Amino acid sequence: MKLGFVGLGAMGEAMATCLLRAGHELTVYNRTAAKADALVAAGAKRARTPAEATAGNELVFTMLFDDAAVQHASFGPDGIAEALGPDAVHVGCATVSLNQARRLRDGHAERGQHYASATVLGRPPAARAGQLFVVLAAADALRARILPALDAFGQKSFVVGDDPVQANLVKLCLNFMIFATIEQMAEVFTLGEKGGIAPATMFEVMSNSFYTAPVHRNYGKLMVEKAYDPPGGPMEIGLKDNGLFLEAGEDFRVPLPTASLLRDRFLQSYAAGEEGLDFVAIFERVRADAGLR
Amino acid sequence: MKLGFVGLGAMGEAMATCLLRAGHELTVYNRTAAKADALVAAGAKRARTPAEATAGNELVFTMLFDDAAVQHASFGPDGIAEALGPDAVHVGCATVSLNQARRLRDGHAERGQHYASATVLGRPPAARAGQLFVVLAAADALRARILPALDAFGQKSFVVGDDPVQANLVKLCLNFMIFATIEQMAEVFTLGEKGGIAPATMFEVMSNSFYTAPVHRNYGKLMVEKAYDPPGGPMEIGLKDNGLFLEAGEDFRVPLPTASLLRDRFLQSYAAGEEGLDFVAIFERVRADAGLR
Amino acid sequence: MKLGFVGLGAMGEAMATCLLRAGHELTVYNRTAAKADALVAAGAKRARTPAEATAGNELVFTMLFDDAAVQHASFGPDGIAEALGPDAVHVGCATVSLNQARRLRDGHAERGQHYASATVLGRPPAARAGQLFVVLAAADALRARILPALDAFGQKSFVVGDDPVQANLVKLCLNFMIFATIEQMAEVFTLGEKGGIAPATMFEVMSNSFYTAPVHRNYGKLMVEKAYDPPGGPMEIGLKDNGLFLEAGEDFRVPLPTASLLRDRFLQSYAAGEEGLDFVAIFERVRADAGLR
Amino acid sequence: MKLGFVGLGAMGEAMATCLLRAGHELTVYNRTAAKADALVAAGAKRARTPAEATAGNELVFTMLFDDAAVQHASFGPDGIAEALGPDAVHVGCATVSLNQARRLRDGHAERGQHYASATVLGRPPAARAGQLFVVLAAADALRARILPALDAFGQKSFVVGDDPVQANLVKLCLNFMIFATIEQMAEVFTLGEKGGIAPATMFEVMSNSFYTAPVHRNYGKLMVEKAYDPPGGPMEIGLKDNGLFLEAGEDFRVPLPTASLLRDRFLQSYAAGEEGLDFVAIFERVRADAGLR
Repeated sequence: MKLGFVGLGAMGEAMATCLLRAGHELTVYNRTAAKADALVAAGAKRARTPAEATAGNELVFTMLFDDAAVQHASFGPDGIAEALGPDAVHVGCATVSLNQARRLRDGHAERGQHYASATVLGRPPAARAGQLFVVLAAADALRARILPALDAFGQKSFVVGDDPVQANLVKLCLNFMIFATIEQMAEVFTLGEKGGIAPATMFEVMSNSFYTAPVHRNYGKLMVEKAYDPPGGPMEIGLKDNGLFLEAGEDFRVPLPTASLLRDRFLQSYAAGEEGLDFVAIFERVRADAGLR
Repeated sequence: MKLGFVGLGAMGEAMATCLLRAGHELTVYNRTAAKADALVAAGAKRARTPAEATAGNELVFTMLFDDAAVQHASFGPDGIAEALGPDAVHVGCATVSLNQARRLRDGHAERGQHYASATVLGRPPAARAGQLFVVLAAADALRARILPALDAFGQKSFVVGDDPVQANLVKLCLNFMIFATIEQMAEVFTLGEKGGIAPATMFEVMSNSFYTAPVHRNYGKLMVEKAYDPPGGPMEIGLKDNGLFLEAGEDFRVPLPTASLLRDRFLQSYAAGEEGLDFVAIFERVRADAGLR
Repeated sequence: MKLGFVGLGAMGEAMATCLLRAGHELTVYNRTAAKADALVAAGAKRARTPAEATAGNELVFTMLFDDAAVQHASFGPDGIAEALGPDAVHVGCATVSLNQARRLRDGHAERGQHYASATVLGRPPAARAGQLFVVLAAADALRARILPALDAFGQKSFVVGDDPVQANLVKLCLNFMIFATIEQMAEVFTLGEKGGIAPATMFEVMSNSFYTAPVHRNYGKLMVEKAYDPPGGPMEIGLKDNGLFLEAGEDFRVPLPTASLLRDRFLQSYAAGEEGLDFVAIFERVRADAGLR
Repeated sequence: MKLGFVGLGAMGEAMATCLLRAGHELTVYNRTAAKADALVAAGAKRARTPAEATAGNELVFTMLFDDAAVQHASFGPDGIAEALGPDAVHVGCATVSLNQARRLRDGHAERGQHYASATVLGRPPAARAGQLFVVLAAADALRARILPALDAFGQKSFVVGDDPVQANLVKLCLNFMIFATIEQMAEVFTLGEKGGIAPATMFEVMSNSFYTAPVHRNYGKLMVEKAYDPPGGPMEIGLKDNGLFLEAGEDFRVPLPTASLLRDRFLQSYAAGEEGLDFVAIFERVRADAGLR
C-alpha cells in the first residue's frame, strides 16, 4: 500500500520501520528531520511537511507526543487535512485525550475526510518486533482498508467500535491498568520487605502463580531490579496518561479512586525529584512512606 | 506417609481427597462429622477429635475458617498439641492473621513441637484437581518432610522462609492482589461502559494482550458475566482477608492506600445488602458510584 | 472614588451595590444588560462594554464566572485593557485558576498596566451586608489605593503578598476547606445515624464544642436540614473549585489526597443526577454508600 | 456527693481535682499509687483497689488508658463491679472502643448494676480549668444523679441518648474531626508554602475568617509553630482513636474514606520515626510528600 507516517519518536520510528519492512511504499515526516534518516536510507521517501507525507497515500499514520502536536500536524498549515484525499484515511495512533480524539474525528468529518484511531500497546522493542497490540476503532467501511497495514507492527488487532474515540478510551484504560498494577505490587513488595520477604521472593511466587501476565512479569521485574534509569516508560508519561484517564472519568462522570490515588503518587515522585525515572519508580515512594531507605 | 487432616470445608475436603488419592494413610477430623463421610468411604480413618487426627502421624494439616477455629483445634482440649509427637509437624494451611500465625508458631515452640505454614492459592475446584499453588515457610530441617506431601494438592510449591509467619504474610499479599485487580478492572469496565465500550469487549482486549494472568481471566470473566451468586469467593472472605492485610500493614508500619480503598468498597457492598454475593460483586458498587443501574 | 465594576451575577451585583452605597462613583457593565437595571436605578452609570466601565476610573473590579469570561472581558475586543489608564488598577475578584491569574497579571504587565487580585469569601447575602472576607495580593505601592474601596463589601481584608496569583491560591485553599469539612461532617453524621445518633444531635454537640466556626455552623445546618435546593453553592462550583485546587497541586507538585477523594465524591453526585443541588448534598452520597435511604 | 475516681493519668487527675474542689467527698485509686498523692494531700481519700474506690459511693468515675485497663478495673478482681451498690452508677469517661463500651454496659446490666458513659472533649489544661465538654449517654432515670457532678469539670454537658455506647460513638466522631481537620490544614499549608504563602499567613487568614473554631485555632497554631514535642496529644492516641473510629465504621457498615486516609497518614508518621511527637506532626508527612524539607 501507499502509506504516510508522521511522527518518528522511538515508537513511531519502530512502527514505520515495520511498515517499510512489510513492503509498503512509505513516505515519512518528522519535525526534526534527522530522525527520518535511517528510514530514508532503508527506502522511505522523505516529506518536508505532514501534508507532503499525506498526499497521494491511502493511509497516513500519526504517532505524536501529545494533543497539541497531533492537532498541529493534522489541521495546522501544511497539515494532513490539506492533503488527505477523499478515499484516504488518517489513522491516529498516539495516546491523546478524549477531547483531542474528538477534535480529530470532528475536524476531519467537517472536511468530508476519513479518520480512524488505532492505538497501540507495547514499548519500542515490541514495536520494532511487530509485536504490538493494536486497538482499532473505525467506521465499518474503513476497517478492511486499515487492518492489513496494522499487521506490520501488531501481533493482534482488536476492533472495539465505530467511533475513533473508543480506541482512545480503551487505550487510556489499558495504560491505567499498568500503573494500578505497579502500585499494587509496590504495596505488596514493601509490606513483604518489612515483614522479612525479599521483593525477589515475592515476585517469584506471584509471577509463577496467579499473576503471570506481561503486566506483572515485565513491570515486576523492573521493580525488583530497580531498573529505573534510563526510563523505558518515563514518569512524565505516567502522570500524563493517568491524568487523561481521570479526565475521561470526569467526562463520563465516573469516580476513579484508584486513579486518584495514583495521581497523588506520581506527584509525590515528582516532588521527590524522581521525574526523570521510569514510572515503576513510584515503588520508591511506597517504600519511603513505609520508612524504607 | 501417615497424615492427619483437620478441617473439611470445601477447600479442606478437596485437599484431603488429593492426599488420600496420592496413597497416603489419612486420618480426618471435622467438627460436623458428616463432612468426613465421603473421605471415610474412600478409605480415610475418622477421628473424633483433633488430637486423635494427630496421634501417630508424621504431619497434621489444618484448614480451618478463622483464627479462633484454628487456635481451638490446636491448643484447646483434645487439640493437636496434646498429641503431636516430637518428630511430627503441624502444617497450618488456613489464611489466618499474622498474630494467629505467631500464636501457632510460639505455642508449638513452647511445647517443643514443630510447626510449619503452607498456605494455598486457588479455589476448591483447583484444590480437587491438585492444581493449587502452595507457599511454604518452615525451618530448613522440616522442609524435606513436608514438600512431598504438598505435591498431592499443589501444582507448585514455593519456599519463602524459615519462619512460618512468612507464608501467611505472602498469602495475605496474594489475596490482596486479587481484590485490587478486581477493583482495577471494575473501574475500567465502568468507565468503558459509560463511554460506549461493553465490559465484554474491554475484557476481550485486556485478557488477550497484557492482562492474561489467571487473576484477570478468572475474575474478569466472573465480572463480565455478573456471576455473583452463588459466591465462589464470598464477600465475607474479601472483607476479612483485606482486613488481615491492613492489620499486617499496621503491624509493620506500612501505609497501604489501595487496601484502605478496598476496605471502604467492601463495606459499601455490605451496606448495599450484597454481603451474600461473590466478592467480585464490588463491581456493582463501582458501577453504582457512576450512576449505572 | 471613581470605580468600574464588570460582572453582575449574584455576587458581583451585591458587591457593586455596597460600593455604590458607600458613596463611590460607579460605572457598571454586565453582558446581560438587564442585570444592571437596579444598580442604574440606584445611581450607577451603565457601560456598554468592559472598556467603557474602565475608562477614567481609578479601579475596575471584575467578578465573572470563569477563566474564559474574565479573559475575554480583560483582553478581548472592547476589553478592560483597552481603556485602563496608567495609574488605574484592574482588581480581579473571581475564583479563577492559577493559570488564569497568571494570564491576567502578565497580560496587564506586558501593557504596562496594574493588576491586583482581591478574592472574596462569603455568599451573596454576606456580600450584600458588606460582610465578606477579602484576600488581597497586590504590589505594595498599589495597596493603599485599593484597600479603602474593599471596605465597602468586606468586614476584613487580609494582605497575603505582592503577587496577585497568591490571593487566588489562598482563595482556592479556603474553598477546599469548605468541601473537606462537609465531607468530614458527612462521614460523622452518617456513622452517627447508623449508630443511633440523629444528625441534629451530633450537630448540636459539635457546633457547640470544638467545631464552632462558620464553616461548621453554616454548612452543618444545611446538611442537617437537607437544604439542598435551591442551591446556595451549586454542585458545579464544588466540582470546579475543587478541580482548580487539584490543578494548583499539580502545578506545585503537592499530593492532595483529601481533594482527590472530594473529586470522586463530586463525580458521584453528578452521576447520581444531583448536579443541580447545593454542594452540601455530597452528604447524600456518603449516606448512600452506607446504605441509608 | 460521695464519689469515687479510678485512673489518675493527666486527664483523670485534672478531672478528679475539679471534683474535689467542687466540694465532693472523693475517694481515688490509681495503679501507680504515687499519682494520687497530690489529691490525697488536698483531701481525697486513697483507695487500694477499684472496689475500695467504689464502695459506699454514689458515682464512680473511670478514666483509664484503653479497653484492657478499663475492663480489668471494672470486672477484674477487686474491681468496681464487686462493690457497686444497687443505687450507685459507674460513669465511664475514657475513649474506648464501641465493643468495650458494650462490654461495660452489658457487664453491669448482667449484675443488675447501673452504667453510664460520660466522655469528655478537651486536653488536660482544659480539664483542670473545668472547661471540658462532656457527652453523656445514660438511662433517663440516672441523668439527674450524674449531671450535677459533671459540672465540676465540664463547661457544658450534652445528653445524646439512653444507651451509654452512644456517648462513646459521639466521642470517636469528635476526635476524628480533629484529625481530619489537621490533615485538611496540612494540605492547605503545604500547597500554600510551595506557592509562596507562609503557613503563618494562611493561618492568619483562615483562623480569622471562616475557620475560627478551637479545632482550627488550637491545632493550626501548633502546626504553624511546629510545636510537636513534647506532645500534648501523642501520635499513639491519633492512631488508636482513628482506628476505633474505623472499627465503628466496620461495625455499622459505613465507608469512611477520610479516616482511611488518616490511618495511612499515621502509619507514615510511625514509619518515619515520628511516633513520639504530637499527632499534629502528621503535617510533616504531608510536607515530605510534597518534597518539603
